[in-house]
Amino acid sequence: MGCQIYIFLTLTLGIIVLFVDCVRYEPTWKSLDSRPLPEWYDQSKIGIFIHWGVFSVPSFGSEWFWYYWKGSKIKSFEMFMEKNYPPGFTYADFASQFHAEFYNPKKWVDIFKASGARYIVQVTKHHEGFTSWPSNHSFNWNAMAVGPKRDLVGELAAAVRSNSDLHYGVYHSLFEWFNPLYNMDKAANYTTHVYQQTKSSPELYELVKRYKPDIVWSDGPMGADSNYWKSKEFLSWLYNDSPVKDRVVVNDRWGSETGCKHGGYYTCSDRYNPGTLQKKKWENCMTLDLYSWGYRRRAKINDIIKIEDLIATLVETVSCGGNILINVGPTSSGIIVPIFEERLRQMGQWLTVNGEAIYSSKPWSYQNDTLTPKVWYTSQNTSQGLSKKIVYALVLQWPKDNILVLKSPIASKNTTVSLVGYPGTFPFSRLSNQGISIEIPVISFNQMPCSWAWTFKLTNIVN
Amino acid sequence: MGCQIYIFLTLTLGIIVLFVDCVRYEPTWKSLDSRPLPEWYDQSKIGIFIHWGVFSVPSFGSEWFWYYWKGSKIKSFEMFMEKNYPPGFTYADFASQFHAEFYNPKKWVDIFKASGARYIVQVTKHHEGFTSWPSNHSFNWNAMAVGPKRDLVGELAAAVRSNSDLHYGVYHSLFEWFNPLYNMDKAANYTTHVYQQTKSSPELYELVKRYKPDIVWSDGPMGADSNYWKSKEFLSWLYNDSPVKDRVVVNDRWGSETGCKHGGYYTCSDRYNPGTLQKKKWENCMTLDLYSWGYRRRAKINDIIKIEDLIATLVETVSCGGNILINVGPTSSGIIVPIFEERLRQMGQWLTVNGEAIYSSKPWSYQNDTLTPKVWYTSQNTSQGLSKKIVYALVLQWPKDNILVLKSPIASKNTTVSLVGYPGTFPFSRLSNQGISIEIPVISFNQMPCSWAWTFKLTNIVN
Amino acid sequence: MGCQIYIFLTLTLGIIVLFVDCVRYEPTWKSLDSRPLPEWYDQSKIGIFIHWGVFSVPSFGSEWFWYYWKGSKIKSFEMFMEKNYPPGFTYADFASQFHAEFYNPKKWVDIFKASGARYIVQVTKHHEGFTSWPSNHSFNWNAMAVGPKRDLVGELAAAVRSNSDLHYGVYHSLFEWFNPLYNMDKAANYTTHVYQQTKSSPELYELVKRYKPDIVWSDGPMGADSNYWKSKEFLSWLYNDSPVKDRVVVNDRWGSETGCKHGGYYTCSDRYNPGTLQKKKWENCMTLDLYSWGYRRRAKINDIIKIEDLIATLVETVSCGGNILINVGPTSSGIIVPIFEERLRQMGQWLTVNGEAIYSSKPWSYQNDTLTPKVWYTSQNTSQGLSKKIVYALVLQWPKDNILVLKSPIASKNTTVSLVGYPGTFPFSRLSNQGISIEIPVISFNQMPCSWAWTFKLTNIVN
Amino acid sequence: MGCQIYIFLTLTLGIIVLFVDCVRYEPTWKSLDSRPLPEWYDQSKIGIFIHWGVFSVPSFGSEWFWYYWKGSKIKSFEMFMEKNYPPGFTYADFASQFHAEFYNPKKWVDIFKASGARYIVQVTKHHEGFTSWPSNHSFNWNAMAVGPKRDLVGELAAAVRSNSDLHYGVYHSLFEWFNPLYNMDKAANYTTHVYQQTKSSPELYELVKRYKPDIVWSDGPMGADSNYWKSKEFLSWLYNDSPVKDRVVVNDRWGSETGCKHGGYYTCSDRYNPGTLQKKKWENCMTLDLYSWGYRRRAKINDIIKIEDLIATLVETVSCGGNILINVGPTSSGIIVPIFEERLRQMGQWLTVNGEAIYSSKPWSYQNDTLTPKVWYTSQNTSQGLSKKIVYALVLQWPKDNILVLKSPIASKNTTVSLVGYPGTFPFSRLSNQGISIEIPVISFNQMPCSWAWTFKLTNIVN
Repeated sequence: MGCQIYIFLTLTLGIIVLFVDCVRYEPTWKSLDSRPLPEWYDQSKIGIFIHWGVFSVPSFGSEWFWYYWKGSKIKSFEMFMEKNYPPGFTYADFASQFHAEFYNPKKWVDIFKASGARYIVQVTKHHEGFTSWPSNHSFNWNAMAVGPKRDLVGELAAAVRSNSDLHYGVYHSLFEWFNPLYNMDKAANYTTHVYQQTKSSPELYELVKRYKPDIVWSDGPMGADSNYWKSKEFLSWLYNDSPVKDRVVVNDRWGSETGCKHGGYYTCSDRYNPGTLQKKKWENCMTLDLYSWGYRRRAKINDIIKIEDLIATLVETVSCGGNILINVGPTSSGIIVPIFEERLRQMGQWLTVNGEAIYSSKPWSYQNDTLTPKVWYTSQNTSQGLSKKIVYALVLQWPKDNILVLKSPIASKNTTVSLVGYPGTFPFSRLSNQGISIEIPVISFNQMPCSWAWTFKLTNIVN
Repeated sequence: MGCQIYIFLTLTLGIIVLFVDCVRYEPTWKSLDSRPLPEWYDQSKIGIFIHWGVFSVPSFGSEWFWYYWKGSKIKSFEMFMEKNYPPGFTYADFASQFHAEFYNPKKWVDIFKASGARYIVQVTKHHEGFTSWPSNHSFNWNAMAVGPKRDLVGELAAAVRSNSDLHYGVYHSLFEWFNPLYNMDKAANYTTHVYQQTKSSPELYELVKRYKPDIVWSDGPMGADSNYWKSKEFLSWLYNDSPVKDRVVVNDRWGSETGCKHGGYYTCSDRYNPGTLQKKKWENCMTLDLYSWGYRRRAKINDIIKIEDLIATLVETVSCGGNILINVGPTSSGIIVPIFEERLRQMGQWLTVNGEAIYSSKPWSYQNDTLTPKVWYTSQNTSQGLSKKIVYALVLQWPKDNILVLKSPIASKNTTVSLVGYPGTFPFSRLSNQGISIEIPVISFNQMPCSWAWTFKLTNIVN
Repeated sequence: MGCQIYIFLTLTLGIIVLFVDCVRYEPTWKSLDSRPLPEWYDQSKIGIFIHWGVFSVPSFGSEWFWYYWKGSKIKSFEMFMEKNYPPGFTYADFASQFHAEFYNPKKWVDIFKASGARYIVQVTKHHEGFTSWPSNHSFNWNAMAVGPKRDLVGELAAAVRSNSDLHYGVYHSLFEWFNPLYNMDKAANYTTHVYQQTKSSPELYELVKRYKPDIVWSDGPMGADSNYWKSKEFLSWLYNDSPVKDRVVVNDRWGSETGCKHGGYYTCSDRYNPGTLQKKKWENCMTLDLYSWGYRRRAKINDIIKIEDLIATLVETVSCGGNILINVGPTSSGIIVPIFEERLRQMGQWLTVNGEAIYSSKPWSYQNDTLTPKVWYTSQNTSQGLSKKIVYALVLQWPKDNILVLKSPIASKNTTVSLVGYPGTFPFSRLSNQGISIEIPVISFNQMPCSWAWTFKLTNIVN
Repeated sequence: MGCQIYIFLTLTLGIIVLFVDCVRYEPTWKSLDSRPLPEWYDQSKIGIFIHWGVFSVPSFGSEWFWYYWKGSKIKSFEMFMEKNYPPGFTYADFASQFHAEFYNPKKWVDIFKASGARYIVQVTKHHEGFTSWPSNHSFNWNAMAVGPKRDLVGELAAAVRSNSDLHYGVYHSLFEWFNPLYNMDKAANYTTHVYQQTKSSPELYELVKRYKPDIVWSDGPMGADSNYWKSKEFLSWLYNDSPVKDRVVVNDRWGSETGCKHGGYYTCSDRYNPGTLQKKKWENCMTLDLYSWGYRRRAKINDIIKIEDLIATLVETVSCGGNILINVGPTSSGIIVPIFEERLRQMGQWLTVNGEAIYSSKPWSYQNDTLTPKVWYTSQNTSQGLSKKIVYALVLQWPKDNILVLKSPIASKNTTVSLVGYPGTFPFSRLSNQGISIEIPVISFNQMPCSWAWTFKLTNIVN
């Protein structure tokens, strides 16, 4: 149940009419899609995605290890197993080596907070089917029964809540590569519902009731539509009756037909980054290791995203109305390795300076500058109303000769231009028609407010 | 569906009326209990029970290892774990050490055949829930996914069928100690059926359809009655429509109320050996290791049943109308250790001589002699009719002074007395009223037909 | 130093002259071989040999596992490794799986005592080089540093001494298959002594000083003679100055040239059983598993010596002046499995009846009967002197028709014949020339004193 | 044998007399210390140290894991073992988990080359005694016999030689914490030499003969002086007769009395960084992980040296005449983790710009500036002779207000001042007495030649 308060002011009569309309969502996409997205989500902009599971034990190739090995039968995966394990070693055998002996969720939260992220999405079950919480529906294939012997989900949820104002969310894969019940339903063209009834749905309800997540990030509907998965039924319960009905946010992977079409916000595809403004709230999920979501022991420094690229992606995403969900894959012992910690803390440093252009910002009339490349815009409403809006030009490449030409903004006579984190304002001239040309003074390298990208703040912009 | 043929002979008219009545059994105990037991079972007399599972890895205490450790928290089990495993090691962690590397079902069958047994009952799932076959309903907790990586059930079933005329049967535990779904149903006083619907019943149907067993040996109904387990529904399907409907035999552990009351034959309790004739066909399941059904690495020779005691139990059981189901626990590597092989082959030697008093025998009017202790009777019908019946007196203790007094038989004038396996007949005298006194000649020890127990064959006995 | 007391009685003068001659043995075979064998050894007759080491972990093939795998490259061994272990798994990797978690030397000693054995020889280091004691000369390749983390030698020595009057001895392999220092000396045709000086000799001295064994059972001199091994120097120290100089016994494997030629007693070859009287004290070392000294997990009952054969070998060996050293291979967890325990206890039962013909017995004029096969003789001196000697005819096969013809003994008129363990004496007649024919009464099988072999005791035999 | 060429020029007679004096070094410190250090070493300046061994498996605390656990019994180490391993687990048990499955020495060499280092020193045996090469003197406690099953030393030596002009060196620990032979010699106050004769010395000769290292980096003499270790004998062989006699370099840890006193160059203590010019060539060995030489799985980003600090240490060290040996600890799987790779490649970037001030440089008259802090000097001789020397002022902290005052140099009239990597020369003024004041133009941050430290090049300096 979601209650919405409508206020009507009849000014002539001095009457205020207040309707409280407690909507109940129907299990139809029309109804479900009509639910307004809880505001915290758009304001947060930055989340941390955590891929941690049995795949973190071989820590080879990617979190799709099992499938690449036994499904696709990719040679390099087969060779890795042949060379390092006894014949007949199975994926399930890896589970008892998932020790998580150094898992300290409080330390993770410290890093996440320092990164500037505002929410967390933890993989609670990936396509391998291993539940990171002691599910009633995954007997002896969960993190309490084998491997860590801990409730990896419950511990992180608790740490997040007691140490931060981060929002806590859960990722959950609907399908499982090798679950025979799923494959039986699939073989029956999803006319049977054994897997959905006994596994995927019970897990979703259990997760929500037990851990009260602010996000339910669904994945892996595969060939089955939302009718098979009973997603609409789940979502109507989630929105109407669940303990998180008022604040929960969901994504769009609820059936083969729903991606980029239905749900709370759109993820469309992994690393979705359209470069243009989207009508619906969306999220760009991407990862610090360019080639894997799960931890890879063989990652080289060249495989790790450069901090410049991370900041650039963040800027582009927010500029176009998206949130960014940055993935980190901990080791099987529960460590976020230093190179990931470094990137996250570097982003946090940048946000300490430039956060005002990011958090709670709104897309502006233009996303990137129509003339100068690598310039992206955001805006903040001010209490003085739209015409007094602040526009931020986020510059990914320092302007040649210290002249920054911005073709998109229309300056007013009250417009000021400054560099966020640097004192004073900069002179500028208006271009004919539209746009301004900013003359940046030469700034010694050790007086620069930040590295990697710079925010020019324009006030009193007309458009 | 079981078809029964009724033949009526109206002698005065010389008419034979033949009804073929194809019974369909109803899911009621009244109907199910009315099904005649397929004849092969009573004729077989001797079966081999095999307890092999994840418990064979710690191989400590008994096959109840998990429960004694984590349920009862028995000190010696806790100490064993503390001393030998890292903290947090779980029972599920044992599974990947269940290698079965020497499992050769053909070799097992050779031993079973040599033992004189006529059927096999393999534990396919014990209370631990680990399925020895690749069940669709036990994802990553089965012998194909973890540990042996083989279909332990299918391989033995195939070997039994291709190398012997032994009957193949499956043991299946309804409940599972630590399955959360079972424990949830239990906590709901079995008013919910989640576990039964998603686990126990699907497994039973899968087992029967896939492996076509001649016996379904159910265990572990615990506090739930047959309504919870849907046992009657399963049995009516098994009797009417399953691929084994004509030859399958089941026991009596189908609900908390059924033991010794309903089902195909009665097992009542483990090591059930009533010592008196029973109205219903029954089975004495017992084990070569006096203290465990699963293999125990620490078993001492004194813990192993003496061959004399094994033969005695066999004799008593058959005499009272029972079958004996002799358990052997293989090692986790798949070996039946020499001491078990020795006992089974010794029994086979004994049966080579004395089998005529065992196989297809019927209980006689008396089970044990009313005067002389340690004498048990069986009988065989002869083609000459009841009055010409052969009675076997199985003597567990060689008669003092070579005089064997049998108080129970009433000899006719045609009665002969002999020692099975020894040439000639022995003189005897009738006792007043009832009984005979046999004068056994002194037989040199190396002319004895067998050891451990001896069969005196009495022909033309009146009663 | 060995002191020998010589007593001269000059009867005519009534003078007793007593010389105490404290011999010091020279490091020459002539001198060393002159040392009288401590009496306890010949009197003991029966010892237990224990092969337990890292080879007990794979427990496959035999205790030569490492060599057959990596030296001979026998296919079945290579296949076993390929099938069950990751590529590159080494023999040394097995050591950490040698848990010995159930090793209870007191329980072993109970079994050994019950077997009737009078001494123990424990393998303290086999050709693998792994020392079962924490040797200073086998860093991280010993039972304290890796695997059991216990002093397997010290614990058994202590248990033997505190729980029994068994003698404790150590087996020690001079060479090691794959020790690079040994192989370097070997490649230098044993002209260098690096291995001997730093490994084999220091170990021998350490073993003797630390554990004070009554037997030093040397093995594995291979192509190197006793000069390379410095065996004569060791033995002269052992005989002159060691803490066990007065009671220690050694065998004959001290150099490539010494087998069956030099040393304390002869072992010649494994399973040496010449069948004729030997001039020098010898020992037949053999094993309960017909195919291996180390425990083999795949042993079948047919691979285990039959009790009849064990008793027969014991009888033949003792009859010809030998001791028997019966090997048992415990499991890697430290268990003597039931089939071995059964054989040992069966032997103990037999010796309880027939021990008088074995312990402290002497070979007689004949070893086996010149006419009747499977009859072996021993004798005991009586206080009445040689002419009153007791002769034992140990019969491995019960005489046909209860007539036992013994061609070898010459009976006197006082000669009596009885069956050990059975009351009374038996009538017999003298054969022409030499020999007797014994009429054994028919003995009911349950009055037989024992199984497997029977001892006929002949008193007052002339020859 | 080291041959030195002496040339005498008698100018008046126009005669050149040339003596070739082939020195043989005596096993005395006087003689050994007289050997000139091969030139390549001082020219190289930067080496990479590699700590990789069994300690990389627990990867906890530091490479002193074994000692801290079992020697010092530090609580946190004991707790780590108690919590994560079965009771009785030993350090030797770790060895079989040392898989090195991703060890690719060619990839390591690529990183080392990119770092700007000119030599490598690999730990071939640390105090744990585990030899990373298949030593003849470490049976079953070496990387070929257990764990990696590879010659870690030979593979890296070969990769270094075939892929680079890096020099290859070996680290070798004389003592071993828990080797009983060492501890026996120690208990005898080093009056016995069993360990030295059978272990440490044979290993050193084996290493040199087999791998022909350019550096022998000795460690761990502990309480024993060089007489016990026979270090002088080894070094005289190394200098006179070994295959590397002409190019080999050694350090100073050859006995308890030799540190900072005898040997090829001085290491004095770990992280030795005196801050002043030293008379003898020295080396600062330090490590990227501030708290450990071996890989620690729990290292946080704050535990990793900042790139500014690494460059600063490099500059200070070279300025004072030292070489720097930068340690990296690979994972047990053979990976140099990204954070280390990043630091090394960052250093390489810096050296690409500033290498002319480092490689083959000589200390200048001053090491650090007498006035301005964080300024260090090096110099290069030019073909024009000493008066035309180039002096480099390496500035660790960018000058405030872009005025760099250098008090130490005395400029000539021909002196020019420039920033290495930046075009043009900078105006400067001479201070009264001594010193110059440089006026640096404002340089936009994206025109800076490098980060972290900057090199000012001064030509034609007088002093």
